[in-house]
Amino acid sequence: MIDPSAALLVVGNEVLSAKVRDENGPWAARRLRELGVRLLAIHVVADEALDIGAAVNAERRRASWVFTSGGVGPTHDDITVSAVAAALGRPLVRLAPLEMAIREIHRRHHGGAEPPEVALRMADVPEGTRLLGDPTFPTLAVENVVMLPGPPRFFRYQFEQVAPFLTGPPFRLATVFLAVGEERFAAVLAAMAKAHPGVEVGSYPQFDEVTDHRVRVTVESRDAGAVRAALRALLAELPREWVIRVEENLG
Amino acid sequence: MIDPSAALLVVGNEVLSAKVRDENGPWAARRLRELGVRLLAIHVVADEALDIGAAVNAERRRASWVFTSGGVGPTHDDITVSAVAAALGRPLVRLAPLEMAIREIHRRHHGGAEPPEVALRMADVPEGTRLLGDPTFPTLAVENVVMLPGPPRFFRYQFEQVAPFLTGPPFRLATVFLAVGEERFAAVLAAMAKAHPGVEVGSYPQFDEVTDHRVRVTVESRDAGAVRAALRALLAELPREWVIRVEENLG
Repeated sequence: MIDPSAALLVVGNEVLSAKVRDENGPWAARRLRELGVRLLAIHVVADEALDIGAAVNAERRRASWVFTSGGVGPTHDDITVSAVAAALGRPLVRLAPLEMAIREIHRRHHGGAEPPEVALRMADVPEGTRLLGDPTFPTLAVENVVMLPGPPRFFRYQFEQVAPFLTGPPFRLATVFLAVGEERFAAVLAAMAKAHPGVEVGSYPQFDEVTDHRVRVTVESRDAGAVRAALRALLAELPREWVIRVEENLG
Repeated sequence: MIDPSAALLVVGNEVLSAKVRDENGPWAARRLRELGVRLLAIHVVADEALDIGAAVNAERRRASWVFTSGGVGPTHDDITVSAVAAALGRPLVRLAPLEMAIREIHRRHHGGAEPPEVALRMADVPEGTRLLGDPTFPTLAVENVVMLPGPPRFFRYQFEQVAPFLTGPPFRLATVFLAVGEERFAAVLAAMAKAHPGVEVGSYPQFDEVTDHRVRVTVESRDAGAVRAALRALLAELPREWVIRVEENLG
């Protein structure tokens, strides 16, 4: 079965130093899940070319898509694009259509004035970069790396421009809400997970919120039949009074 | 100057699949900053031993401390502790004081009943693991890896048990709020950053929120004198009408 995947790289000194809370990671996790794309990892790294390059190179070999967030502006700390170029072994080249888009945006916001040279440096991208989606504010992609801006409004806009290329078979999920602690059913759960290798089984105890249950067990797969079979096997082994309710989203 | 550092590894299928939003990353970023510890990276990885091991081994060699979040419970998907053992090349051994603590907690919450064997497996930890802080709910550390539970209440409690060991010289920060876009001062900022290599200079444009400024420039170092000098140099180059205000936290 097709299993498209992604990794997200948040380039963010400001996140690591707690000046800003990252919003793009949680948003991308939700959207990718909706699109049927498996998110393999989120890396928040410093504005350092070696850190960015190491993460890009580790992830682009195993993920269908690698997204970067941030570091694409005109200032000295905007190094994502050049770091991706270095990681891919591609020279930076000025892309004429991108320079035109930058000039056009600048003129529109500055009474027709031309942008300074430093703004045009945003048109210097890895050789082979494709411009996707909205031509007036294009999304940058090179090989399987998509370089998105950090501000959430722009991150989301440019992500949605490439979202049509990113769909996979939907994930199917069943959730069992239990009244007892994990240690009571851990052995049963382990046996079920072993007997049903085609599903992913998670167990999430609740300690922080006031809820009607103590543990939430999730059973998930792209294959709804596999979820149903695993869920049936699990419920057969659990005393009925432990099960508060079952929620299913099996399509 | 001493520069203690940390990396955080969030073991979280539930975060990557958007079932739960990670709270431990933002919280740890803020607390580590307050403690004077530089956070080098946050990695959110799947519940896979190889993913956990790769991140632990990459970070433990450069960071003073590596924290893991989650995957320390009794169910089959709780694999952090064994993955850390494998990454460090240490066998899993049952730690008697930890087994005693688990028995004690279980008895207290279950009318004196002994825990099932599966709960005692939480006492199987990498050989050489130290138990820090509260002996009734100890924090697990092996070499420079600290293994914390995922539920935020427990993550924070166990983090604070080791916080006294984690302090460094405080970070000093000055922030300049500017009325103009980044491209107007990018060249000045780059020159200042180059002339003051002892400070970290960040530039954060505001697009999403309604604010009184368009860009926030941060100048930061453990050396307050270096921040003052860089700030003075920057302000000398900026037209006064561009500067809305300056905030300093220089001790």
